[in-house]
Amino acid sequence: MKDRLKKQLEFMLEIDKMKNLYRQTYVLHEDRKENDAEHSWHLAILAFLLAEYANNDIDVTKVMKMVLIHDIVEIDAGDTYCYDDKGYTTKAEREENAARRIFGILPDDQRREFYGIWREFEDSRTNESRFAAVLDRIQPLMLNYTKNGISWQEHGIYKEQVLSRNSDYFNESDELADAIKEVIDNAAEKGWLKT
Amino acid sequence: MKDRLKKQLEFMLEIDKMKNLYRQTYVLHEDRKENDAEHSWHLAILAFLLAEYANNDIDVTKVMKMVLIHDIVEIDAGDTYCYDDKGYTTKAEREENAARRIFGILPDDQRREFYGIWREFEDSRTNESRFAAVLDRIQPLMLNYTKNGISWQEHGIYKEQVLSRNSDYFNESDELADAIKEVIDNAAEKGWLKT
Repeated sequence: MKDRLKKQLEFMLEIDKMKNLYRQTYVLHEDRKENDAEHSWHLAILAFLLAEYANNDIDVTKVMKMVLIHDIVEIDAGDTYCYDDKGYTTKAEREENAARRIFGILPDDQRREFYGIWREFEDSRTNESRFAAVLDRIQPLMLNYTKNGISWQEHGIYKEQVLSRNSDYFNESDELADAIKEVIDNAAEKGWLKT
Repeated sequence: MKDRLKKQLEFMLEIDKMKNLYRQTYVLHEDRKENDAEHSWHLAILAFLLAEYANNDIDVTKVMKMVLIHDIVEIDAGDTYCYDDKGYTTKAEREENAARRIFGILPDDQRREFYGIWREFEDSRTNESRFAAVLDRIQPLMLNYTKNGISWQEHGIYKEQVLSRNSDYFNESDELADAIKEVIDNAAEKGWLKT
């Protein structure tokens, strides 16, 4: 087997660890949390299912690649819960080191490609990365809402926190922003979010 | 919320069931089987990681969409183990009904799009569907090999069965075909496959 293919298969086996990285969101039909592989799969489908709602032109294939690999850095850096302000102070450095090691398994051209896609997602400056961020928010929001706000309740989250976490991206999609606000309002009315 | 978006979100919630559909392959770092969502995520990354090995021209985006949704029918039809000849006699009908119900949740245009992608995968006549099938074989093969052939050993699988299951697709990629044969030879030498 050629060295190039060996590296690619090694990367494939390395990222299997995504299946054991559990997030704060619960899956709907088992009593357990969702892992990063499942989450990323769900987002990749949303990328083409909901692409029509992007306010700006997007390259859907790029969004798909982005959401498929955006959490791979958590293999080394761990999952930082989105309302954990302390964890966020060291998140960037931990994730940068993780990206260098994990994408570094790949042949050089693909290391650059994968690192570039991940970096673009993190920097959140392009239409694709900002639309990917919308998907990354609406997916756990919908799961959590459908499961009676369980992870918000566990962590005692306020409606304002959820609104503020999402509002950066309200310009990316008018219809998804409206849907998100409707869901957050309903969750607060039901008492699943503190007000 | 508009009816169209409601249907799309309902579909998104319906396919969460993929996270509870367990296959015969084990994940590498936990003592449990892999589910369809994790498997599909892994394949979607392989689609662009290994696209360079396709012997024929392929539309990589189509391959990605295909592998992301190819197993959704198992929500109703269940997973048929690839060496279960009896299960295969009713597989096509069970999966056709599943596709009609599950993709039927979507707005009409997307129902047609998703059903079409799934149907193309099943018919296995296009370059994309045949390359997707190669990925669908190499991923469990590599996981299973890395885990000492555990699911082959559990089911008492013969080397010839694995070779024959894969050989249909050996024309799709010379380099991946060689790699697959190398892995199967090694597995047989180690006694993980019967000869």
